[in-house]
Order: sequence, then C-alpha cells, then structure tokens
Amino acid sequence: MMTKAIKQVVIVGGTHGNEFTGAYLIKKFEQYPNLIKRASFETLTLLANPRAFAATRRYIDRDLNRSFHSDDLQNLSLWDYEAQRAKTIARQIGPNGNAQVDAIIDLHSTTANMGLSLLISNFNQNTLQLAAYLTAVEPLVKVCWTRPNSESVLLRSLCDFGFVIEVGPVAQGVLDANWFEKTEKLVYIILDYLQTRNQGIVPAMSDSFALYETIEAIDYPRNQQGIQAMIHPQLQGRDYEPLHPGEPMFLGFDGKAIAYAGTSTVYPIFINEAAYYEKGIAMYFTKKREIVI
Amino acid sequence: MMTKAIKQVVIVGGTHGNEFTGAYLIKKFEQYPNLIKRASFETLTLLANPRAFAATRRYIDRDLNRSFHSDDLQNLSLWDYEAQRAKTIARQIGPNGNAQVDAIIDLHSTTANMGLSLLISNFNQNTLQLAAYLTAVEPLVKVCWTRPNSESVLLRSLCDFGFVIEVGPVAQGVLDANWFEKTEKLVYIILDYLQTRNQGIVPAMSDSFALYETIEAIDYPRNQQGIQAMIHPQLQGRDYEPLHPGEPMFLGFDGKAIAYAGTSTVYPIFINEAAYYEKGIAMYFTKKREIVI
Repeated sequence: MMTKAIKQVVIVGGTHGNEFTGAYLIKKFEQYPNLIKRASFETLTLLANPRAFAATRRYIDRDLNRSFHSDDLQNLSLWDYEAQRAKTIARQIGPNGNAQVDAIIDLHSTTANMGLSLLISNFNQNTLQLAAYLTAVEPLVKVCWTRPNSESVLLRSLCDFGFVIEVGPVAQGVLDANWFEKTEKLVYIILDYLQTRNQGIVPAMSDSFALYETIEAIDYPRNQQGIQAMIHPQLQGRDYEPLHPGEPMFLGFDGKAIAYAGTSTVYPIFINEAAYYEKGIAMYFTKKREIVI
Repeated sequence: MMTKAIKQVVIVGGTHGNEFTGAYLIKKFEQYPNLIKRASFETLTLLANPRAFAATRRYIDRDLNRSFHSDDLQNLSLWDYEAQRAKTIARQIGPNGNAQVDAIIDLHSTTANMGLSLLISNFNQNTLQLAAYLTAVEPLVKVCWTRPNSESVLLRSLCDFGFVIEVGPVAQGVLDANWFEKTEKLVYIILDYLQTRNQGIVPAMSDSFALYETIEAIDYPRNQQGIQAMIHPQLQGRDYEPLHPGEPMFLGFDGKAIAYAGTSTVYPIFINEAAYYEKGIAMYFTKKREIVI
C-alpha cells in the first residue's frame, strides 16, 4: 500500500546535457503540459543542466549527477557551474529526507543496450511496488540497484521515491524517435500508475521481480598508453545476459580475446557506456535475484 | 592507370576527438607498425587532434576538419588550438597541390547508418579507380561526393588523392569492436591495393560504380525554442535508400509526421549525425548516379 498520497512529482531531463531523450522530453512536456497533468497530483518539469545541454556535453565542469552529497551542497567554496546547479536543484526539490516533492523521475540515456532500465535507490514500499508493476506491464523494463556504501551523490537521492529511467542504446547528442517514444510512453505509464494509486486502487501486478544488483565495476585493460582492449564483439549489446566463466569480455589490440576470469556467472550492465570511459568503467557486473514484495 | 607511384601514405585518425574508431586504429598501428607496412611505399600515421581525443570531444575550439582553407592556414591571427593543429598538419603533409604525401586516408565515424562510406574529393583517376575497386570487393562501401563551391576546408584536401573512410552507426566516444575490425580490414584492403598498383598490376574491378552526390543540406524543423521535430522512425537508419515524395522525414513533438515535400526521389545520407545538430543539418540529400571510369 502507498505510504502516503503523491502530491508533487518532478520529471527531470538533461541532468547530462548530451542525453537528448530526456532533455527533449522535458521541452516537449513544457510545450504540451496537458500530457503530464494528472488529476490527483501536480507534475513539475526540470531541465537540470541547461548549459551542458546547450553545449551538447555531459557536463561543463563536473558530473552533475555526482554532485548531490550533502557535504558538497553545503560547501560554499564549491562554486563551479554544476556545483551551483546542484545547490539550486537541492533547494528546489530537496533536501533528502525532507523533500518538497514526493517522487523524482530522472530521465537518462546510455550508449549501452539497457532497454528501459529502472535504477532504484532503495527498497521502500513505493519503489518496490513501482518496480513490480512496471516489469509486469512493460517487458523492456529491467530493475537495477547499487548498494550504497555512503551517502548518495545522485540527483534522484534528493527524494525517498526517486529513480532513474535509463534508456538505450542511444548515441550521445542524438534524438532517436524510437527511444523517445518508448520513454515518453513509460513516463505516462508511471504517471497513470501514480494517479491510480492516489485513488486508492492497487493495479494488478506480480508479487515479485528480478533485481540486478551491482557487485563490481570493471575497467578496460590499460597500460600507460591507455586502453589496450575493446569490449569483445560477443559481449557488446549483451547487457543483462549471463556471462559465464571463460567467456570473452575484451578483444585486445593485439587481436587476442580476454575471457571473464571469475568463477561464478554474472550479468553485466552498462557495457560500453561512452561516459564511463573517463570513469574507468567498461561495464558493471551484477548478480540477479528475485525480490518478493 | 596510376598516374605515378605512391611513395608515402598517411593514415589519419582522431581528426574529430570523439570518433574513437579512427583514433584507436592509429594507436594500434603505432603500436604494431608492421600491420600497415607495405614494401613499395612508406605508411605514416597521424593522430590529428590529440587534445580533443583526450577530452573525448569533437574539437576544443573549432572543427579541425573545417580549418584547412589556405586563407585560414596563412592567417597569423588565427591561433586557437585547432587553427594551430591545422597549420602544423598542413606543414607536415601539405600544402594542397604540392603535398608531401601521395595519399591521405582520413578515418572518421558517424552516428548515421553510413556503413563503410568513401568520401571522395575529386574525380582524379586514382580516386575513381579506388572507388570502383572498393565497391567491387566490399559490399558495405558506398561512395559520396560533394561538388566544391570554393576551396576546400577539409583535411583530406591537402592531397589530390585524399579521402575519408566514414563508418557507422557508431556512438561518439565509443569503441565498437565490430566497426573497428571492419574499418581496420578496409584499411588493409586499401594498402594492399596501393601495393598492387605500385607493382604495375591492375586489380580486377568493375568499370563503374554508384556515386551519391550531395545536392542539399536539410535542417531540422526549428522555431525560437529550437528543434521541433525528430528524424521520423521510418527514415532513421535508411541512409542511401530512396526517399520518395510524400514519405515521412520528421516526427514533430506535436505527434505529427512531416513528409518530404520534393517532387523527385532523393537518397538521404548522414541522417541524424550527432555532430551536425550544431551545424543545422539533419541529413544531406544526394542524387545517385553511375560513374563509368
């Protein structure tokens, strides 16, 4: 059951300026506000990083979606563009634990084959029920979670019921109509779901869903000259599929394949995400488990 | 017949810093120089825009591949990063009409579905024969040409026998092993072809090929708020395919399709190339014609 009624929802796009799907959806929603209007709550929109969007870059000075740690928000000496944006956004919709909105839908895209991924922040009842509902009604939806080892730095963490819709594969700086329409449709499904719940109706849903829990970040093989291997063609695009011990992960510039050297099956995600090269991440390994709600 | 022997070939990558296919091929060739060594000529490599590559951006200050007009090269007041790089590169391998190399192979990638495109600069005998040979041996190869209306600003124009290999779809900032290997193989085919020609042997080839000649650049529908429509899903990825009058080109944010309003069939290329949003280009129209060599 919903712990309380949802009164305000914010849809966020362009947290990363070169992820056009979310940024242009925000522009569309601002132009046609009736599309996101629902009777029982107010829907707000936020183009989170307008300067990065104008420059078609992920960020200007630092990754906005790593800028929401409370220490950084309170640090008056942090005053670059994204530090400022984070402070402004946190004032508008935060702070965490006492948010001025009841839900955050943060729209992202990725060059990895992530389909329509729901990145959740916690196992609150609201979050779990939404995950169970969305995976039941839309087969492209997969649910991911990373165990926090400290306070979150993510925009969605400003609200207990904050999550990311991560769609792909979509190239950076490209507006892909197919993914745009799929994402738009999923936003409406979520808004309609929240409207139904606010009316006290529990939509039919499964009592469980598959959760992909991040267990490790894997970097490209590197030496002092930089990256020495690419994602292996057999792994490219296989996000959420099992990777078994001994199967190829990378293809070296020397022409040799490099196998997964672990002893247990993992489920890689964010394989070959463009923005993660600079973070030293070729993919994340996840383990798959069933969550009963 | 070859007009003269090829003595020096330069393979260029990273002219645009976020086009990883070419940039990492250069790094591979520099690490394994035997791969591009041929008996009858010297093969050089050039990572054209190292700062943009390090920053995973197309360019730092201006598009390097629009910086080779002789006026700009001689303009001592142009001194931003790419203006400097253009001057340095022009000294190394130019100038046009008196180049220090006999062939330039400039490796690019695109988010459009361009396959393995050969972008030629002129109808010299060398260029035409290479085009006829490559289209005969590799079905993914398509040949494009833009009629120059003034002196070229392109890097490949530094040499009469200069051309681009444009591969895609590949996202910016992504190393895609499939396209990497296809491009690498095509480079070897070209080097082997030049080696064969230098030995006085004419490889078997067709006496004609299809040329796609650019006739018009088409922008996205825009108003003061910016882009108002996306490439229509039915057109996305259909580079080199015929677009007939009345067929959909764009899908507006209002949900309405916008048709191609011309009266003759065209062949769009570079459909939805990420780097062309800022140039105001959604695609190029081409006409297709048969070139007999």
